[in-house]
Amino acid sequence: MVGYAFMGAAHSQAWRTVNRVYDLPVRARTALICGRDPGQVATAADRLGWAGYTTDWRDLVTRDDIDVVDVCTPGDSHAEIAIAALEAGKHVLCEKPLANTVDEARAMVAAADRARAAGIRSMCGYNYRRVPAVTMMRQLVAAGRIGTVRHVRAVYLQDWIVDPQFPLVWRLQKDRAGSGALGDIGAHIIDLTQFVTGQRIAGVSALTETFVKERPLPAGSSGLAATVDGDSPEGRATGPVTVDDAALFIARLDGGAVASYEASRFATGRKNALRVEVNGSLGSLAFDLERLNELEFYDGTAAGTEQGFTRILMTEPDHPYLSAWWPPGHLIGYEHSFTHQMRDFLEAIATETDPTPSFADALQVQLVLDAVQRSAGAGSSWTDVEPSLAPVAA
Amino acid sequence: MVGYAFMGAAHSQAWRTVNRVYDLPVRARTALICGRDPGQVATAADRLGWAGYTTDWRDLVTRDDIDVVDVCTPGDSHAEIAIAALEAGKHVLCEKPLANTVDEARAMVAAADRARAAGIRSMCGYNYRRVPAVTMMRQLVAAGRIGTVRHVRAVYLQDWIVDPQFPLVWRLQKDRAGSGALGDIGAHIIDLTQFVTGQRIAGVSALTETFVKERPLPAGSSGLAATVDGDSPEGRATGPVTVDDAALFIARLDGGAVASYEASRFATGRKNALRVEVNGSLGSLAFDLERLNELEFYDGTAAGTEQGFTRILMTEPDHPYLSAWWPPGHLIGYEHSFTHQMRDFLEAIATETDPTPSFADALQVQLVLDAVQRSAGAGSSWTDVEPSLAPVAA
Amino acid sequence: MVGYAFMGAAHSQAWRTVNRVYDLPVRARTALICGRDPGQVATAADRLGWAGYTTDWRDLVTRDDIDVVDVCTPGDSHAEIAIAALEAGKHVLCEKPLANTVDEARAMVAAADRARAAGIRSMCGYNYRRVPAVTMMRQLVAAGRIGTVRHVRAVYLQDWIVDPQFPLVWRLQKDRAGSGALGDIGAHIIDLTQFVTGQRIAGVSALTETFVKERPLPAGSSGLAATVDGDSPEGRATGPVTVDDAALFIARLDGGAVASYEASRFATGRKNALRVEVNGSLGSLAFDLERLNELEFYDGTAAGTEQGFTRILMTEPDHPYLSAWWPPGHLIGYEHSFTHQMRDFLEAIATETDPTPSFADALQVQLVLDAVQRSAGAGSSWTDVEPSLAPVAA
Amino acid sequence: MVGYAFMGAAHSQAWRTVNRVYDLPVRARTALICGRDPGQVATAADRLGWAGYTTDWRDLVTRDDIDVVDVCTPGDSHAEIAIAALEAGKHVLCEKPLANTVDEARAMVAAADRARAAGIRSMCGYNYRRVPAVTMMRQLVAAGRIGTVRHVRAVYLQDWIVDPQFPLVWRLQKDRAGSGALGDIGAHIIDLTQFVTGQRIAGVSALTETFVKERPLPAGSSGLAATVDGDSPEGRATGPVTVDDAALFIARLDGGAVASYEASRFATGRKNALRVEVNGSLGSLAFDLERLNELEFYDGTAAGTEQGFTRILMTEPDHPYLSAWWPPGHLIGYEHSFTHQMRDFLEAIATETDPTPSFADALQVQLVLDAVQRSAGAGSSWTDVEPSLAPVAA
Repeated sequence: MVGYAFMGAAHSQAWRTVNRVYDLPVRARTALICGRDPGQVATAADRLGWAGYTTDWRDLVTRDDIDVVDVCTPGDSHAEIAIAALEAGKHVLCEKPLANTVDEARAMVAAADRARAAGIRSMCGYNYRRVPAVTMMRQLVAAGRIGTVRHVRAVYLQDWIVDPQFPLVWRLQKDRAGSGALGDIGAHIIDLTQFVTGQRIAGVSALTETFVKERPLPAGSSGLAATVDGDSPEGRATGPVTVDDAALFIARLDGGAVASYEASRFATGRKNALRVEVNGSLGSLAFDLERLNELEFYDGTAAGTEQGFTRILMTEPDHPYLSAWWPPGHLIGYEHSFTHQMRDFLEAIATETDPTPSFADALQVQLVLDAVQRSAGAGSSWTDVEPSLAPVAA
Repeated sequence: MVGYAFMGAAHSQAWRTVNRVYDLPVRARTALICGRDPGQVATAADRLGWAGYTTDWRDLVTRDDIDVVDVCTPGDSHAEIAIAALEAGKHVLCEKPLANTVDEARAMVAAADRARAAGIRSMCGYNYRRVPAVTMMRQLVAAGRIGTVRHVRAVYLQDWIVDPQFPLVWRLQKDRAGSGALGDIGAHIIDLTQFVTGQRIAGVSALTETFVKERPLPAGSSGLAATVDGDSPEGRATGPVTVDDAALFIARLDGGAVASYEASRFATGRKNALRVEVNGSLGSLAFDLERLNELEFYDGTAAGTEQGFTRILMTEPDHPYLSAWWPPGHLIGYEHSFTHQMRDFLEAIATETDPTPSFADALQVQLVLDAVQRSAGAGSSWTDVEPSLAPVAA
Repeated sequence: MVGYAFMGAAHSQAWRTVNRVYDLPVRARTALICGRDPGQVATAADRLGWAGYTTDWRDLVTRDDIDVVDVCTPGDSHAEIAIAALEAGKHVLCEKPLANTVDEARAMVAAADRARAAGIRSMCGYNYRRVPAVTMMRQLVAAGRIGTVRHVRAVYLQDWIVDPQFPLVWRLQKDRAGSGALGDIGAHIIDLTQFVTGQRIAGVSALTETFVKERPLPAGSSGLAATVDGDSPEGRATGPVTVDDAALFIARLDGGAVASYEASRFATGRKNALRVEVNGSLGSLAFDLERLNELEFYDGTAAGTEQGFTRILMTEPDHPYLSAWWPPGHLIGYEHSFTHQMRDFLEAIATETDPTPSFADALQVQLVLDAVQRSAGAGSSWTDVEPSLAPVAA
Repeated sequence: MVGYAFMGAAHSQAWRTVNRVYDLPVRARTALICGRDPGQVATAADRLGWAGYTTDWRDLVTRDDIDVVDVCTPGDSHAEIAIAALEAGKHVLCEKPLANTVDEARAMVAAADRARAAGIRSMCGYNYRRVPAVTMMRQLVAAGRIGTVRHVRAVYLQDWIVDPQFPLVWRLQKDRAGSGALGDIGAHIIDLTQFVTGQRIAGVSALTETFVKERPLPAGSSGLAATVDGDSPEGRATGPVTVDDAALFIARLDGGAVASYEASRFATGRKNALRVEVNGSLGSLAFDLERLNELEFYDGTAAGTEQGFTRILMTEPDHPYLSAWWPPGHLIGYEHSFTHQMRDFLEAIATETDPTPSFADALQVQLVLDAVQRSAGAGSSWTDVEPSLAPVAA
């Protein structure tokens, strides 16, 4: 694994847990973790349970006893690492968004295509597909339970940088992160809604906003938290925020639905509010990541006086991924989506099938992000999403 | 009062109740109700408690013992009736949206301005401003409790025409209704969010959609319900739907906020889901008309570990409009917003002040509706809202 | 009507409204209202819309043009007024609880029985039976939708006297009110759960508590609000609270269910939280009066992965009492339960049938209250409810 | 660890995770797991990540390299194993309830007292104390934020044996489990409410019920799931259910509060609904284990018009136990309460302090369970809880 911060910790927990919960034909070993700071990566290896550590990601690619490379770095290094790993015959799991630019993403898809011919698997880490409620939304839509999808509305709302003194971490710098709320959290709702509906975003009209344009330089950061230097705001060195704080767009999907999307880091009080609602001709589905064990399903074919949104507690053994966890009513958390992801990735490797979302699926999300940025840059003018050849993953 | 259907019944209930609940310097008499069908209007007068009835609205304007005319007809007749009434020296309450076109709305504003000089009052029926939770949202924003407003997200979702066999009632015809979901329910969230934030929509990028383009002709209708002729769908005469089923737009407000709006009659399972959330630099507010006795308030200045959305049950005597109703915890309903509206209208008449929202305020909403339609008609291109001179009502 | 305070206002609103909403074979006139204070009752008559007023309730009984007497006084005068009215051939609606003692209640039942022979109707005002969600609970249980009822849990929680300086109003005096939280709000959940389940409470084990035993004497009161004399708590004259602040009991129902009940005026933050849940072998139902437009229904026979509590918004035309109100999604409030009660009472009179709950039904509630008080007075010992002959009303 | 079923899996996950998340002065090794079936325990050891396994729990007690014994067996073997381990100088974590009888529990407390003198620690696994929301309830009550506690109402509702064909697993047999819903889940709400309020249950009036008195014998079980032999219900061998399906009691706490408790396995639709509400003179707290990341806090000292239940999302770094987990808004699950428990247990061992809840605390819960059973057996007569000497754990 490359990277040991927030995503690194979450992925480590999943790698350590996946074979303890699921019966799988292969077992994961947490062999080698890579980070740039030797002291910090050594500490992380010890804490997170990795057998070894390195400061050079190429070690992961060259070691013969390593079969899988998990890329958890900022987006600007995804392409280089992932392509090298694929070319070295390693299966690759790459965090989302796939890359910071469409060009990089295309190169990664090409590398994945070449590797696939040699039986090498690749997958992008849109982990929320594996939240059981989201997986079940997909199943219900695919089974026709809500009929023809007419409306999608999706928001992903956080508030972690409302304080104008929060420092200028890498996620607020375009060269590292590619974009702001858009690529970080907007990408999730793009992928998730396309996954759930089986429809793709065809065109968008967008706006983005940066509410706080200058921030103090960071002294240190960990996960999403960070600190600044200086005793008072006045004395702090500052730098420009080069990404969006919020991105909003309306869209048309290729199956006829209309949609609304919003990603923001300035929605005070909303901590991780990924909320998706889908309305179809026969029913509706609603989900909120802050209540991730629940799914709301409106069945418009039920008896008229008994219709309503049913709050399904997603903890039954027949719910997706749940058979291996706890008895009904015992909740799972955020990290479990990664365990489910590792389960499916390992199973795909063992059974020599291609996991989803593929790099090509992730490229398509990248094309939507690109259309959003182009529309926002052109006065919200309608912008078609550039076609890619990959089908929406089933 | 002109009109006796859904709005007519709701207004009648409010006129009958307002002096039974509130101490006011004037008393309403329900003197004369007007409708086109003599039999139906006679029945309505008897049922709804009106002393007399007529089939000619001019009777309301010419009778000396009538001081107030309440216009509850479809939008295409608002201008003619309201202007005539104002010119005859009657105070006018006109249902929303103010008119079907900007030109009509401008003429009504001009008439209202002339009448005001003679002490004649006019008001537009955006009743949701008087839901106590909405009034309190306005108060909290105005008091600075959520700081600078950054985000507005508003939806008004219904599902009453999801069935493609629901007939082509007047609300689905452009010449009668002006627009579809946009003017009928979208107008409410435009007015409400501008009222709450004190900011105006400056520009929009919009799309509209008509999912079901042809519907059976109606045999009869009542309120929002209707019936069709013919035993089977095949045998029914049909006509084209000439309004939008759904309208979505993103917007910038003149105070710097970004916003998202959606109005739909195709959101299966959502019956009257007017939902508004406002995020500011210090806090947030959220409201859902399907739980109209509740207001959610996030105070970002509270102790860190105790922050959260507080569900305020809006039934305390110190809450807006509540002192005259029931003890704490005893809910009010939809119709009470009209009683509150009549209370404020009567009080304005008695105290010789101008009630809000004025016709000019309502014209400004009309200008937003117009911008939305122009943007949707021009491929979602960014469209500035034409300025009007009226300030947002306090 | 006798009484013009909280219940008087609520009943007046219902009497004025019932024929404006429902098509009924008879029409209510609000003829004469009675109260002890001549000035206040005159004001009330004018405000609440009564044609005349009196300070002697016997005027209601003796006037020939009066057909119905509505008793909204404190419980200590129910028996005298109701019996006199029945004997004078007036139909009687009497507020709950029926009386302050079992003996009085028995006398009232006897009077009602005699009057029934002459076609005179009587009904007790357990208005919450007519909240649409409660009526529908009853229908679903009766239809077998939740199978055999195993569990009932009911609370009625308020907090209006948490402040120890709240004065000693009549509701806190045993000679006026009979009991405290028990008879005032506990009676509601006793009646409601028996109504919903069709089972009767057979025996109880109870405890009661008075947290604040001495309170300042009141200077004035209105509804549930009241004021005290004196600038500071120290200088105020006080008196003893002679009723319970809270009552809790566990129970067995005659159909085999076990149950838990709690009524309190000291549940800080709960304003009018009448909450009832019923669990059966095939499903469950849950209701909260603070969200009175909603009913939660768990259908245990639904597909396993789709089971959950369905939140039914009780605003559809086919829901009980709703056909005459507003379109789907438009809420009703607390007062509507009284309008529904008046509708059924008037219909019973017109159709010469007996309305429910009858005085005999209300006597049975009284017997439960009596058993609770006896158990609480005897160290929570198990106490059988004395049988009464009346069947549970359908 | 002894036991490898439901609790065994949950504890294993926690032992493996605790040092990966928290910085602690000691590290847990998962050395040896014990179970009666050699094949199953071998599989469990491999799956759950234990270095070795055995079929004789005495191996855990005698091996010198083992410092801690974790007892996850049914209650009938707790005393023997825990006492032997303590006497052998092992720190002991014992699942709840502490024992099946008061006598066993007293013997365990005596053993723990003797061991403590030698620096050996013991703790009972009431894991829900370590759900962050519950820990924070305790902190808020202790800080006086809700004033004097007047009301406690607690339910723990499940529905896993509503089906009368669910087999007669060990949890339904008195000799193995001691009691049914009472000891299994009722014990949790007894401990939790005493922990939160700092008050102890002084006396109770109780009833218990067994709705299904005969069940098919089990063919196999895993966690809470189980299977039966035989194709049809008719052909199955059955046996008597010897424990309660549901237990209800009202209580007085030694600090003056009144309380209501209910534990049931027959609450259809409630999967793991541990719900606790505490009302004090200044505020209230409410918690639901099915939404374990949320705490509801009503602050009665807030501005009057802004009072309401605040839904605190318990994911902030300053919330109890949360600093080591994910960023705000990223939920934790059921299993995390065990990780928190192991953290505190390890820290107590390392810092040579006594962890809570102690065996003495758990004995006190046992005495409440005993009082409940005696009251239920004596016609719900009021039964004082036998005093124990241990203080409520801070």
